[in-house]
Amino acid sequence: MDKQYIYKEGSALLQKVRECKPIVHHMTNYVTVNDCANIVLALGGSPIMADEKKELHDIGKLSNALVLNIGTINDSLLEGMKIAAVNASERKIPIILDPVGAGASTYRTAAVDQLLSSINPTVIRGNLSEIKSVAHLSSHTSGVDSSPVDEAQGISHAIEVAKQVAQDLNCVVAVSGKSDIITDGKQVVLVENGDVMLTRITGTGCMSTSMIATLCAISSSPFLASIVATAAMGIAGERASEKRGMGTFHSELFNIIGSFDGKELEKWGALNVR
Amino acid sequence: MDKQYIYKEGSALLQKVRECKPIVHHMTNYVTVNDCANIVLALGGSPIMADEKKELHDIGKLSNALVLNIGTINDSLLEGMKIAAVNASERKIPIILDPVGAGASTYRTAAVDQLLSSINPTVIRGNLSEIKSVAHLSSHTSGVDSSPVDEAQGISHAIEVAKQVAQDLNCVVAVSGKSDIITDGKQVVLVENGDVMLTRITGTGCMSTSMIATLCAISSSPFLASIVATAAMGIAGERASEKRGMGTFHSELFNIIGSFDGKELEKWGALNVR
Amino acid sequence: MDKQYIYKEGSALLQKVRECKPIVHHMTNYVTVNDCANIVLALGGSPIMADEKKELHDIGKLSNALVLNIGTINDSLLEGMKIAAVNASERKIPIILDPVGAGASTYRTAAVDQLLSSINPTVIRGNLSEIKSVAHLSSHTSGVDSSPVDEAQGISHAIEVAKQVAQDLNCVVAVSGKSDIITDGKQVVLVENGDVMLTRITGTGCMSTSMIATLCAISSSPFLASIVATAAMGIAGERASEKRGMGTFHSELFNIIGSFDGKELEKWGALNVR
Repeated sequence: MDKQYIYKEGSALLQKVRECKPIVHHMTNYVTVNDCANIVLALGGSPIMADEKKELHDIGKLSNALVLNIGTINDSLLEGMKIAAVNASERKIPIILDPVGAGASTYRTAAVDQLLSSINPTVIRGNLSEIKSVAHLSSHTSGVDSSPVDEAQGISHAIEVAKQVAQDLNCVVAVSGKSDIITDGKQVVLVENGDVMLTRITGTGCMSTSMIATLCAISSSPFLASIVATAAMGIAGERASEKRGMGTFHSELFNIIGSFDGKELEKWGALNVR
Repeated sequence: MDKQYIYKEGSALLQKVRECKPIVHHMTNYVTVNDCANIVLALGGSPIMADEKKELHDIGKLSNALVLNIGTINDSLLEGMKIAAVNASERKIPIILDPVGAGASTYRTAAVDQLLSSINPTVIRGNLSEIKSVAHLSSHTSGVDSSPVDEAQGISHAIEVAKQVAQDLNCVVAVSGKSDIITDGKQVVLVENGDVMLTRITGTGCMSTSMIATLCAISSSPFLASIVATAAMGIAGERASEKRGMGTFHSELFNIIGSFDGKELEKWGALNVR
Repeated sequence: MDKQYIYKEGSALLQKVRECKPIVHHMTNYVTVNDCANIVLALGGSPIMADEKKELHDIGKLSNALVLNIGTINDSLLEGMKIAAVNASERKIPIILDPVGAGASTYRTAAVDQLLSSINPTVIRGNLSEIKSVAHLSSHTSGVDSSPVDEAQGISHAIEVAKQVAQDLNCVVAVSGKSDIITDGKQVVLVENGDVMLTRITGTGCMSTSMIATLCAISSSPFLASIVATAAMGIAGERASEKRGMGTFHSELFNIIGSFDGKELEKWGALNVR
């Protein structure tokens, strides 16, 4: 998948999503849920949040993608996620897993294990600490943010981890970091867009996950969808960071994604196809 | 109720709400709850969010209106809503029901049925798909957003549905759409204010519901309160849409409602009294 | 503790927090949780939200401070708070209690009693009605906002209440109001910063609590940490209020705290050391 192909197909994807308005079912945390809903709308999709087990079957029938984000996971929500994920697998709609804070507690790591034992996610997105935790590789967890120690091991190490997890789980893996890594286990694309401001507000990781899900809902290539969504967030971060301050930056992300299209992707994209 | 009456009494209502600071008890979803709290404050009320069954009686005694919003309903919350609603009925404070996503799942439709079997809401606000679902009229649900198929059936059809539901349930019905319909079963007012941007962020429906509740709390006419709140949101949407982008638009809604008064209502209001 | 000492040590604290990035575990309400996460990040800390009892031990081991905010408390969350608080006590990390709405229901008042019977908070922050409720002094509760009747009793009365609670519970007490009162039971500092706009959006109290926790996490003086955090929020409110409107004001708070430092504290601080 070369750059020109990504820009051309990515552009088409960004146009199609606004026509198709895919419904993206979220089972997610209560911290960033509003941002997730608004970013899906900004990109052109239609978010629906539902957790009650008794309605998961019906909601699943309406939906074009499923987000499982464990940011404030508990036993009841985990049980529901398994039900929804099995439904989604049967209906062959993409499942996007965000293992927020995996490794921060034995409970979260085990929750991810349980999910992975019953479902096959289409994409897993997280920072390096979280992705390593998914693979039971040793990591240095510090809360829900990426570990500096992990980051310091360098991009080659991170790529190897991402590829390994993608191969083991037969899915696309998106690792956010200074350079974002997207891999399907064979191909690797680095997204060199982004800005440190993206780490200074909550929810940018969760929003990236929701954007990946929104594009996966209408694409036959979760790899391409993940690259485009990740680049869109990175570019939005760069451009929004020109605005003064965190509150304005936060608001500006929605402004930018709300009109993001193929031209912006091609103009600002900094992709490094390995 | 003619236009001049609405502007005059509406103006008084918008002034009174900032003096009385009515307390609006919300049992609502976790997606847009922050927006609901802030819009009530912007309009001059005082929001309180409480779900625990053991405190519903006490919270009810403090409150001047009750919002029941089923956006992320579950069994436990539904049980609490019934308790709170019975309390509110006994205390004769207005109950505003927002059947978010009714029709999207059998569960949600049944949840609304259960609420309506034990309480008599003062106002029901939703999009046409949701209102039809409340009345068990066939609809074409697409997630939590209004169905294009339903919208295409035209305004006359929508008015008939709204009047029927209002008569059957002996309440005011507010249907949001390209034109918003407010009816008490006899009188009908269309609010022709609004902007497509209001559909591009999450929470504008929920916020309208909370604003209706805030004005109902201090008005003897839920019909008037619903018209004024709906017009205020529509006008805010129009004026905020002059600002670039979804994030800025979102923020601007609060700026506008925070100083909204009778002059703005009269200057910008586009009411169509049937 | 004189003003110059506060400015000098406060300045050091504001610098240290950005270097140490303390992890602040929140068990809080779902209304303002996003604001709390973002304000902790703005100040330089790292927020983590986790409620599931099974992971509280592990999350506690990562954390440098614990916030207990009862804004939407329920039985399950209360049970978890007790577990987390006992852990925090054993690890000797600061516990910051925000008794949101205490006095609004018997349930909330009892919830605070239960927490206080098993733990010793480092700081309690609330408005005067809430602090009086904690002390079982009679108050005039009106929802979650401060009672005008209580406010009218004057600052001397409020200081006496705050000192009494601080002595009884052997903790720092921060009372928000027109003048904010910070006391360790002996020393008293009034923070005369602030703006009425801080009462017109939701979450400014909760955010102050989270900021206190973030600074307590890296300070040996919870008294100083509380003064500095309270002054920072008050100053941010003053400066943000120059911007038109509630939405912009809300956003601007994060802009200001995101770059708040010792110079701003000294330049704008209006401290009254008693």
